[in-house]
Amino acid sequence: MTKRDYVIQQIAKTNKKNYENYVVTRIYHLMNRTDLKFITQQYVNRPEGHALTDMYFPQLMLHVEIDEPFHKKQIELDLNRETDIIQATDHKICRIEITEDLDSINKQVEDAVDLMTEKIVELEKNNLWEEWDMEKEFNPEYHKEKGYLDVKENPAFRKSVDACNCLGQNYKSVQQAVYKAKLYPNHCIWFPKFYENDEWDNKISKDRKTIIVKCKNTKKQEKWFRNDKFNLAKKITFPRSKDNLGNILYRFAGIFETDMDESSIQNGVVLRLKKTRIEIKTQVNIE
Amino acid sequence: MTKRDYVIQQIAKTNKKNYENYVVTRIYHLMNRTDLKFITQQYVNRPEGHALTDMYFPQLMLHVEIDEPFHKKQIELDLNRETDIIQATDHKICRIEITEDLDSINKQVEDAVDLMTEKIVELEKNNLWEEWDMEKEFNPEYHKEKGYLDVKENPAFRKSVDACNCLGQNYKSVQQAVYKAKLYPNHCIWFPKFYENDEWDNKISKDRKTIIVKCKNTKKQEKWFRNDKFNLAKKITFPRSKDNLGNILYRFAGIFETDMDESSIQNGVVLRLKKTRIEIKTQVNIE
Repeated sequence: MTKRDYVIQQIAKTNKKNYENYVVTRIYHLMNRTDLKFITQQYVNRPEGHALTDMYFPQLMLHVEIDEPFHKKQIELDLNRETDIIQATDHKICRIEITEDLDSINKQVEDAVDLMTEKIVELEKNNLWEEWDMEKEFNPEYHKEKGYLDVKENPAFRKSVDACNCLGQNYKSVQQAVYKAKLYPNHCIWFPKFYENDEWDNKISKDRKTIIVKCKNTKKQEKWFRNDKFNLAKKITFPRSKDNLGNILYRFAGIFETDMDESSIQNGVVLRLKKTRIEIKTQVNIE
Repeated sequence: MTKRDYVIQQIAKTNKKNYENYVVTRIYHLMNRTDLKFITQQYVNRPEGHALTDMYFPQLMLHVEIDEPFHKKQIELDLNRETDIIQATDHKICRIEITEDLDSINKQVEDAVDLMTEKIVELEKNNLWEEWDMEKEFNPEYHKEKGYLDVKENPAFRKSVDACNCLGQNYKSVQQAVYKAKLYPNHCIWFPKFYENDEWDNKISKDRKTIIVKCKNTKKQEKWFRNDKFNLAKKITFPRSKDNLGNILYRFAGIFETDMDESSIQNGVVLRLKKTRIEIKTQVNIE
């Protein structure tokens, strides 16, 4: 996908929502930088539950919410288990209220643009500004160089093979859901799917801290439940999801461990989030 | 209608046309002036026929056309006889080509914005810049003060009573299609409808220089054809039309005269455009 298509498709999500389209395009065009990434309609995980923000700037950890007090905005939480949901702790929210007066809307947008511009200047000053690069953001090499994955930063890969290779697996292609991690003793790399299918009914809790894995196939159920290779390993977890444009994402969800006390054959295997960050190990290179 | 609603509704016309929406909003937001009027999807009268332009700035007599070479743009000339069509002689056209590269689209928009900004500066310098004022533009007093109506400037009224009063009739409300002009000897003020109905089938030619009026009611046909009060008068003509938001407009089309040689009971009364400008007379005020 080109940057043009990405931007056009993000804006197209505001199709038919006329005030949203006005504010989103106004912010985007007045910011006037092609190195700034944005996502329209991003689901976020908040202490009070899931929410949908109208415009999200990942580099700035900043969201814009557009309030239409007179048109009660339809709540569109058409979440499904594949919906990409990001962590938004420490993220800022800018609210733009749709008022009767165009000048007042424009003034609020101007304030948001000023705030965002200041934020970029601040990041630049501290050497923390990273230009949006569509080639880079899902590339394992970029994360390897960075040296870690942290749930707070919402790192993700487009393919599970990239997540594997980022953690030192060196695969050409992958098809399984679980891999033994070569560089991490007693760890596996796991790509769970949270949508129900014939064999599995896996769920993640709203706070994304608990996963329940349930095998629906009664013949395999017990064997799976007694699978110590899986149960005893620490699971570096990348749930499969789809972003707002329908593209597949494997977003790092943290390291989970099995809670055997809470698990049962009937109710499934219960996993608990134990770590939200992993250092990326690289094999020793002989130079 | 507020300016906010007007702007939002104009932009909403680009709903679902994603490239158009991008370019139209980018031009609008980068121009960043609420005193600049624009119309999306304006029908214009050109020597080669009717055309639809994507964004029209009446104060600047400038149109933007957005070319999508790879997506063959659907030609949407869903013209009907009520469609508002403006004269575009001496109007400028800016073309924006949708290329693969976002930077190139942005550069073209920047050039258009620069051109428009220069044009405003030039108009201001020559004391010809008029701020967009929704209260003013269809107000008879504004045109009276200006002193004339000229087809080239596409003047229009929202109500036929306003057109009448602009020309000195001093009415409270009007319902007829023809009025004897009080201040213009041998003239009448005429509001023809060009959509076919049970009684009439009136047409205007593509170049808007010929009108044919046909009475369909066979009983009234001959009486109408022999109506010398209408035929001998010069007709100050304001066809009824609808703008791109569906609002009624009576746009000045010029002064028409009956061409009796070409007229017949069967084919209707033929009228020819004779003048494209009228000076506005005002009654002498005793002060």
